[in-house]
Amino acid sequence: MDSQRIRQPALAGKVMSAAQAATFFHNGMTIGLSGFTRAGDAKAMPRALADRAAHEELHFTVITGASLGNGSDGLMAEAGLLARRLPFQVDPTLRKKINAGEVMFIDQHLSETAEQLRSGTPSRIDIAVIEAAAITEEGIVPTMSVGNSASFVEQARYIVIELNTSMPLALEGLHDIYLPAARPERKPIPLTAAVARIGHPTIPFDPEKVVAIVLTETPDSPSSVLPPDDETRAIARHVIHFLECEVEAGRLPHTLAPLQAGIGTIANAVLHGLVDSPFRNLVMYSEVLQDSAIDLLDSGQLAFASASSITLSQAKYAHFLANLDRYRDKLVLRPQEISNHPELVRRLGIIGLNTALEFDIYGNVNSTHVGGTHMMNGIGGSGDFARNGQLSIFVSKSVAKDGAVSSVVPMVSHVDHSEHDVDVLVTEWGLADLRGLAPRERAVKVIEQCCHPDYRPQLRDYFERACQAGGHTPHLLAEAFTWHQHYASHKTMRLD
Amino acid sequence: MDSQRIRQPALAGKVMSAAQAATFFHNGMTIGLSGFTRAGDAKAMPRALADRAAHEELHFTVITGASLGNGSDGLMAEAGLLARRLPFQVDPTLRKKINAGEVMFIDQHLSETAEQLRSGTPSRIDIAVIEAAAITEEGIVPTMSVGNSASFVEQARYIVIELNTSMPLALEGLHDIYLPAARPERKPIPLTAAVARIGHPTIPFDPEKVVAIVLTETPDSPSSVLPPDDETRAIARHVIHFLECEVEAGRLPHTLAPLQAGIGTIANAVLHGLVDSPFRNLVMYSEVLQDSAIDLLDSGQLAFASASSITLSQAKYAHFLANLDRYRDKLVLRPQEISNHPELVRRLGIIGLNTALEFDIYGNVNSTHVGGTHMMNGIGGSGDFARNGQLSIFVSKSVAKDGAVSSVVPMVSHVDHSEHDVDVLVTEWGLADLRGLAPRERAVKVIEQCCHPDYRPQLRDYFERACQAGGHTPHLLAEAFTWHQHYASHKTMRLD
Repeated sequence: MDSQRIRQPALAGKVMSAAQAATFFHNGMTIGLSGFTRAGDAKAMPRALADRAAHEELHFTVITGASLGNGSDGLMAEAGLLARRLPFQVDPTLRKKINAGEVMFIDQHLSETAEQLRSGTPSRIDIAVIEAAAITEEGIVPTMSVGNSASFVEQARYIVIELNTSMPLALEGLHDIYLPAARPERKPIPLTAAVARIGHPTIPFDPEKVVAIVLTETPDSPSSVLPPDDETRAIARHVIHFLECEVEAGRLPHTLAPLQAGIGTIANAVLHGLVDSPFRNLVMYSEVLQDSAIDLLDSGQLAFASASSITLSQAKYAHFLANLDRYRDKLVLRPQEISNHPELVRRLGIIGLNTALEFDIYGNVNSTHVGGTHMMNGIGGSGDFARNGQLSIFVSKSVAKDGAVSSVVPMVSHVDHSEHDVDVLVTEWGLADLRGLAPRERAVKVIEQCCHPDYRPQLRDYFERACQAGGHTPHLLAEAFTWHQHYASHKTMRLD
Repeated sequence: MDSQRIRQPALAGKVMSAAQAATFFHNGMTIGLSGFTRAGDAKAMPRALADRAAHEELHFTVITGASLGNGSDGLMAEAGLLARRLPFQVDPTLRKKINAGEVMFIDQHLSETAEQLRSGTPSRIDIAVIEAAAITEEGIVPTMSVGNSASFVEQARYIVIELNTSMPLALEGLHDIYLPAARPERKPIPLTAAVARIGHPTIPFDPEKVVAIVLTETPDSPSSVLPPDDETRAIARHVIHFLECEVEAGRLPHTLAPLQAGIGTIANAVLHGLVDSPFRNLVMYSEVLQDSAIDLLDSGQLAFASASSITLSQAKYAHFLANLDRYRDKLVLRPQEISNHPELVRRLGIIGLNTALEFDIYGNVNSTHVGGTHMMNGIGGSGDFARNGQLSIFVSKSVAKDGAVSSVVPMVSHVDHSEHDVDVLVTEWGLADLRGLAPRERAVKVIEQCCHPDYRPQLRDYFERACQAGGHTPHLLAEAFTWHQHYASHKTMRLD
């Protein structure tokens, strides 16, 4: 083993196979795995534990930063390992088991998990499994994400380190590890700009807790983001035009405010659209950086980016790792408690850009539940930013399933973000600025600006009849979900 | 005029009648009125403006801290003065006009109004009307609330001061005025404990902006809180037992964490129940203090209380004002932006206690909309505390309308707080601790612990059939609002 990878000689003896390390895990334990939006995830141990589960009863509560890559969630779900899983996932196999009620999934604001662990709810971490690029004299060097790793290491009884030799040692110094103290000794978080460093480059740890070091060389799974298309480009144009108007009105400076963008194709496309915008010296204060962030750094429009993970396509991933030195001064990765912290999101005045599955005429947003019942991925950090930021923008294509599903509905079938937390809604058709408007005013904007023209007549019809029935937020409860029911029975939300 | 009330001689000449002051107001203006939960509200100008509106066209956007007393909202609504109103109200006449779509009401998290004004959305304040106990050399001494007054004064073009001579001069020193700077110069808010003072005792102002000083002597409207009854006492017992268990489990210290309690009968009763609890040296960090807070200060159990307003019954109000010196060191009133600020709510680890109108089997809470459509009061500060606090508790009686309405329903007809923000639900029947549970697990707790026994069979029936249909959050969209529809047509939610 390269002595640069393990700089505490006493730990060299802890190197073992994943199968050996798996013997430290016992049925019923709570496990904290590194990994956030498939970046920096523990790669060997999920597989080794799934192998063990073929021969014996093994059920865990598994907590991560956010989603894992490498099919790990699917493997663990298939093996029956996952009794309880939080706070986020994106795996098709796991999704199926969650929706069948076989895995208890706790869908959680990503800033809250660390806080809850600190207060001992629901349970303490037994073993932390953390991917690292190196172990220095001072601490663990994370890889492409920080997520909840620092909290797991702080609180776990035992630590397993997955030392990934495919990760360049140059990652050292990219991270800024700061965790709030336990209350009541907690002080203000001393961060007043996205570029600030307030902590340490490595995760401090107690070497006595390390029970195993497992060597891996598996890269992160590439992101599954699709390239921009006509609709996402139109959405990007609307958002950028809106931001230009905000600057013109004097409500935002020319450098805007720190940007957050949720994971996924549309948010990535909107950010990508900034390449052609007049904005310069932008900064991001986000939870995840996608390809678009690297392109904006390359184009010079983005001056600095702070996040908790970097999730890239295969090509961009290779480019990034090969050119780390170019990005070193322009990037920082933080614990997700800090990237998403209400204190900082409010102080910095984040502009939050997140994706809606569907939204309704009053601006309530469903980010998670297909048909109101079936979990897609999870709320992620969208609530941290939408509630506490300066501007909360949600984007969606106006229709899905070749037009059979309208993303703009009379009433969302599940509420993740209430109208209180939604300032601006955007589809390829237009942008509805809902700030300072009462519900009846919001409805007109949403219908006329965002809804697909094919669905506008039936949405106007609903709204007009609801207004006749009265109320601050007019609805016809007997018809509020008719569109969803019609899709379930007729495979289209078109009522005629 | 007592020179103690106006300590800037140049301002003495600005004293005039409310009718004279009313001539400074023009159609279409945006007005900021002091007042929070009926405490410290501007009392003379709403009436004078309503009188003027009898003779001429006058429509305003009226922004307050929270609700006004003295029937002011009703008077203004009746006179057609209110084109737009935010962020909270409790007036029956205004409510009717809101629900008829005649007044555009923007229901807003109470921490956000000041932030939006600072960024110029939706409009700047033309005239601020602020109730004061005195005008010192340094600033305005507010009365029984601070609310958004400091923000209004900072941003308004003109200021009208209502000098209320029934308010004791001894109020001076009770307030702590601190406002965050505009971004990007914003620093951490230097408050690390509920007792801390971080600002000035008066609201700084530009004397040039003062166009009128109006003398009043009207007291605040008394609170309309009902005395505890069997149900509210039972709810209090459940909450206190839960908190005792948290202390025993080591998740809370013996002094608990700073307490927030929403306005209203049930929250007041729960706090009142603490008088008989084993807890000592408690502190409150809340938006409003009701009778219960004064009783807890008197009993010695509450060591300190921070809020944005004090709203008391007639008897307690007289007692409080006559004994101000006794409370001087145990109380502070802050701007609502600070009392409800996400940064501070998270840092201090507030235990939030708020009232639900209805909640559903998965823990979503409706705080505002009767039947999903008709506004009752507004979300107030509940979202500020529920989202960012350490523990979010919602309380409600299990039934209303003599048992014809169940407060526990299959799906709430309006979502103010999604299940992500709701830790604990309580009715007189019991307490459901939902932390760390998946939706299907939450439903069992809510049904068996909180629902009135008369409604449990039909709620179990819904949940069981929904589970057969599947999903992470099982629902039957065709039946989700059947209970509400049945109440509309049959005046009962009982389906048999």
